[in-house]
Amino acid sequence: MGKITAHELAKKQKEISVAEFFERNKHILGFGNQTRALITSVKEGVDNGLDACEEANILPDIYVEIKNHEDGECKIIIEDNGPGVVKKQIPHIFGRLLYGSRFHAIRQSRGQQGIGISAVVLYGQLTTGKHAKIISKVDEDRPAIITELAIDTNKNRAEVINKDTTHWEKPCGTRVEVSIIADYKRGKRFVYDYLQSTSIVNPHAQIIYKEPDGTEYIFERTSETLPKKSVEIKPHPYGVELGTLIKMSKHTKSRKLSSFLKTEFSSMGDRTTKSALEKANLDKDLNPKEMSRDQFLALHKAFKKVKIMAPSTDCLSPIGETLIKRSLKHETQEISPEFIITASRPASVYSGNPFQVEVGLVYGGNLPKEETVKILRFANRVPLLYQQGGCVTTQAISSIDWRRYGLNQPSGKGIPSGPAIFLTHVSSTLIPFTSESKEAIADVTEIENEIKLAFRECARKVQHHIHKEVKRAKTREKFDLITKILPEIAKKSANILDKPVPSLDPIITKIMDVVWIEDLIEYEKIKREPVQTTLVGVTPTDDKGGTITKSRIMVVNYKQTPQKLNLYAVIPQDAIVGTVTPKPSKITNNYIKWNLETIPPANKIDINFELAGLEKGDFDENDLYIENINPTFVIGADKWEGD
Amino acid sequence: MGKITAHELAKKQKEISVAEFFERNKHILGFGNQTRALITSVKEGVDNGLDACEEANILPDIYVEIKNHEDGECKIIIEDNGPGVVKKQIPHIFGRLLYGSRFHAIRQSRGQQGIGISAVVLYGQLTTGKHAKIISKVDEDRPAIITELAIDTNKNRAEVINKDTTHWEKPCGTRVEVSIIADYKRGKRFVYDYLQSTSIVNPHAQIIYKEPDGTEYIFERTSETLPKKSVEIKPHPYGVELGTLIKMSKHTKSRKLSSFLKTEFSSMGDRTTKSALEKANLDKDLNPKEMSRDQFLALHKAFKKVKIMAPSTDCLSPIGETLIKRSLKHETQEISPEFIITASRPASVYSGNPFQVEVGLVYGGNLPKEETVKILRFANRVPLLYQQGGCVTTQAISSIDWRRYGLNQPSGKGIPSGPAIFLTHVSSTLIPFTSESKEAIADVTEIENEIKLAFRECARKVQHHIHKEVKRAKTREKFDLITKILPEIAKKSANILDKPVPSLDPIITKIMDVVWIEDLIEYEKIKREPVQTTLVGVTPTDDKGGTITKSRIMVVNYKQTPQKLNLYAVIPQDAIVGTVTPKPSKITNNYIKWNLETIPPANKIDINFELAGLEKGDFDENDLYIENINPTFVIGADKWEGD
Repeated sequence: MGKITAHELAKKQKEISVAEFFERNKHILGFGNQTRALITSVKEGVDNGLDACEEANILPDIYVEIKNHEDGECKIIIEDNGPGVVKKQIPHIFGRLLYGSRFHAIRQSRGQQGIGISAVVLYGQLTTGKHAKIISKVDEDRPAIITELAIDTNKNRAEVINKDTTHWEKPCGTRVEVSIIADYKRGKRFVYDYLQSTSIVNPHAQIIYKEPDGTEYIFERTSETLPKKSVEIKPHPYGVELGTLIKMSKHTKSRKLSSFLKTEFSSMGDRTTKSALEKANLDKDLNPKEMSRDQFLALHKAFKKVKIMAPSTDCLSPIGETLIKRSLKHETQEISPEFIITASRPASVYSGNPFQVEVGLVYGGNLPKEETVKILRFANRVPLLYQQGGCVTTQAISSIDWRRYGLNQPSGKGIPSGPAIFLTHVSSTLIPFTSESKEAIADVTEIENEIKLAFRECARKVQHHIHKEVKRAKTREKFDLITKILPEIAKKSANILDKPVPSLDPIITKIMDVVWIEDLIEYEKIKREPVQTTLVGVTPTDDKGGTITKSRIMVVNYKQTPQKLNLYAVIPQDAIVGTVTPKPSKITNNYIKWNLETIPPANKIDINFELAGLEKGDFDENDLYIENINPTFVIGADKWEGD
Repeated sequence: MGKITAHELAKKQKEISVAEFFERNKHILGFGNQTRALITSVKEGVDNGLDACEEANILPDIYVEIKNHEDGECKIIIEDNGPGVVKKQIPHIFGRLLYGSRFHAIRQSRGQQGIGISAVVLYGQLTTGKHAKIISKVDEDRPAIITELAIDTNKNRAEVINKDTTHWEKPCGTRVEVSIIADYKRGKRFVYDYLQSTSIVNPHAQIIYKEPDGTEYIFERTSETLPKKSVEIKPHPYGVELGTLIKMSKHTKSRKLSSFLKTEFSSMGDRTTKSALEKANLDKDLNPKEMSRDQFLALHKAFKKVKIMAPSTDCLSPIGETLIKRSLKHETQEISPEFIITASRPASVYSGNPFQVEVGLVYGGNLPKEETVKILRFANRVPLLYQQGGCVTTQAISSIDWRRYGLNQPSGKGIPSGPAIFLTHVSSTLIPFTSESKEAIADVTEIENEIKLAFRECARKVQHHIHKEVKRAKTREKFDLITKILPEIAKKSANILDKPVPSLDPIITKIMDVVWIEDLIEYEKIKREPVQTTLVGVTPTDDKGGTITKSRIMVVNYKQTPQKLNLYAVIPQDAIVGTVTPKPSKITNNYIKWNLETIPPANKIDINFELAGLEKGDFDENDLYIENINPTFVIGADKWEGD
């Protein structure tokens, strides 16, 4: 073997088209095997449909159909009632990788890469040699466009095979039909699971799913309100890379550094800008296009030294406590877990991208005790079904020592075993997925830390919950004993002495020496008023659920002196407060507060409030706090720590 | 919020450059955090250097240096003695993503994407704003070229900042200098580990590593022979996708279907081609460019019905049993494990890509018993350090029930715990990595199955080994008892009866009633002859190691009748056989065979053989088999099952 020269090797060096790259590396896009190929195809189509509808302020109606042929070929049909795609853009959106509208916008969306749906078309063509069929209607008064296309992978461009108009009964929308080789038998269950989970965290969407045998599932819309639309924002100076800063300076229209900072970044007001420039020792009138690397470096370092307001969270759309609980309840149907606890972190930033972590935890009941805990993962309201082992979520959970929270975990690392389900949702303007298949979140330190903090908070709440239960159980035992035995003794003694049976209230009060708070939650079904279906579905909020949640709280003074206290009942942010008795002193988004004046010994006060906008079970336990009283005297509520 | 139309949305839809895509999604390339960024950068540089040298038939000398500045900036320098890169190609190779020579070739190499090294340049520019510096020398007689470049991410093209010639003492090679933001303190250990592992499985490479504080590590070359060069092959018909088949037909120069099949595919001879065309009911003279989808479909289906020879494994370069053992030994220094076992599967195919799985297993010794087993992963001779949880390797291991092999594994799934280390190596013309960062292998069913089969084989060998040990131990106990107690009894009895002590050999033989085989391995250091350093380093093979491995086997006949048998000693494929006594009847790549004629009762035969080309410890246990004798009579060897 002789030496081979650089000149000989140079002949082989050439460009690789991105479509060609992914054609060969289809596993990177989530098409590594035929089961996954099925789920990925459905997922990309549905994500696309949901994004399109939400972007156009339309309540999503998604239709998914799978036709399964005997030779392993599946036809996937996905239809939405979104705005449609204009004729000229159809070949680009569906027949070209790395093309789209969501990549350059900083706001939360499901798709962010401009790869997903064209990847499905590419996979279909690779495995079945068939073209994709796209129907798009953008205007109620004009016919739909039907396009048959393939992808020329050497060029990464669509090849339009056929184009025509057609009648379509929908006012607007998009329908994609792709034939792929897939394992329907194995994938079936996952498709259903994926659609169901998607429906739970997207209650504003209706999803209809038709299986090959004709079975049709309807995942009903349970909320007529679109989630708060995520707003497009500018990059935040914290965590912006030096290279990005320099690149931005080249493309800005601002001629002065100060206006560059104020117009191209979020959270940069006059004061912050001035302060950053001072720290960087830079003149505000510098032309950003003429600045040196060292000047940018100084500016970049100055960002970190100045207190800059956190990025606006308008660009994020978290799932919220109620939906997380509902999702977890769904996973634990007929398992009657002991409790469900959630925690939500404030928004944070990594590499200039805002993100927010929400977690939930179910514990106990009939959940299997021997197996590792189940982990449910969501990113931007999309369930993640694969690559659990490679996800930062798993890494964060594995790094917490769960043994002290009663779970089994050899050597205090790894996924714990025990009767629990963990849920995480990361929302971000840019989810750092480990690959284009969007199945796992990369181990970005900032995200890992937030997930850990959220679960630690959950774990603390769990301990707190257990502690409260234990305390209450002990007191109840004492109480039961007193109320059974004391009257017996009193009766017997009175009999012997031939005296009347004395009132025991003061004695019971003396022995108990606590304020006892007990509560109960009931649900009442209400008739749903007929709703006028509109495309832009902002309907009255009390129509959200069909259930009124009724909470009853009883405060008994078992102390020897009159007591007064303030009581707080925490309520879900998305609940609507109805009747409240007695009159509260304050109602906020988060709680109802009562100033309870002077409860005489052995007396009680009944408190009632109603919540609308929740489903049965969304709110199933009161979270009560007290103020202006020594908390050690109170059973059933904790010290209020402030808003 | 009003409805937003497709026309409004269309304004935002645009192309995304691949560099821009990865700039934003740098975590996909393995730059998700600053620790990983360091390791990824070193890895991409070293992989590139090794590939370049091997491609040009040069024994690799790789130099790695890291300079660490206080503000988290690291300068990474990687130098090879490869063929260099021609001037014109430098901006493309280092300043453009998806450009290279290895993507379009079907053969095993480390890099396959044309992304790695330009990704390092991109990350450097993003985080430090500094340019990369490339020195390349392609010809001993001409000066080196020094190029300073950046990447214009909007265009995915290099921006050459500066170009000049310079003196470089090397005859040829490439040197890359990139400044990146990285966490040296945390990453330090991993860089060392990565280089060490790389050196072990690439014994033909010398790697010098200089740390920021000046410490220099030299991972010496231990083999002067380049690994068998992997040969470029054509796609194999098994597993080729229908879409790929159609695409190939469009680009072929063949005008007839039969010649298309014979020239564009591997393993398609006259007979196979004829047979496939018959099954597909297609005329051999069809013009492939004019065939319909249905005709290709028929052909595609016919491929699966015809017996086609497995793809040539010339395109693969497995690590081999000896290096796997050496690597595992290295991991268990001073741990004295009970045994190391390896298994190697025959080459197989997924989606038309040949691949091969090798595995190894260490058990026992001082390895921690409580922790989950350690998993070492390699792909195309590159150690994989991250994303273990997302790797098919882990999935395959987790799906085996290890409890019956003595490891702890709750519910029979998941990574087992116990004193063991598992190693896997997958070699392929196209490793299906889960992402461009090349850290984990996707869950391709065919690969998963091969890994499972390999580990099952290992596990069986473990059981077998344990079984053999137990059997031998029992017999030895018996033997010890007999040889201690019987002589005592004989002596006492003889004394009492005043008779001479009788010979016990026939009695011992009668009680033992086995053929006993025992063995011993010793190593002898030999003087290394001076080697003439040449660029194309094919040097005499007996110089590979500096050690002679001496194996001594003793066969004792403890049966009452004379015995004859054939004995096989299995030897590593890469060992060179030296002196053998007595004269063997056969020597192959895999074993030495002796026909042992008539060993009288209570007699023994001594067998010796020497192996060169191995390091001390590479061969540390004889693997012995017997033939032409009832295996139940033999202790220390098993039945020969054929080649």
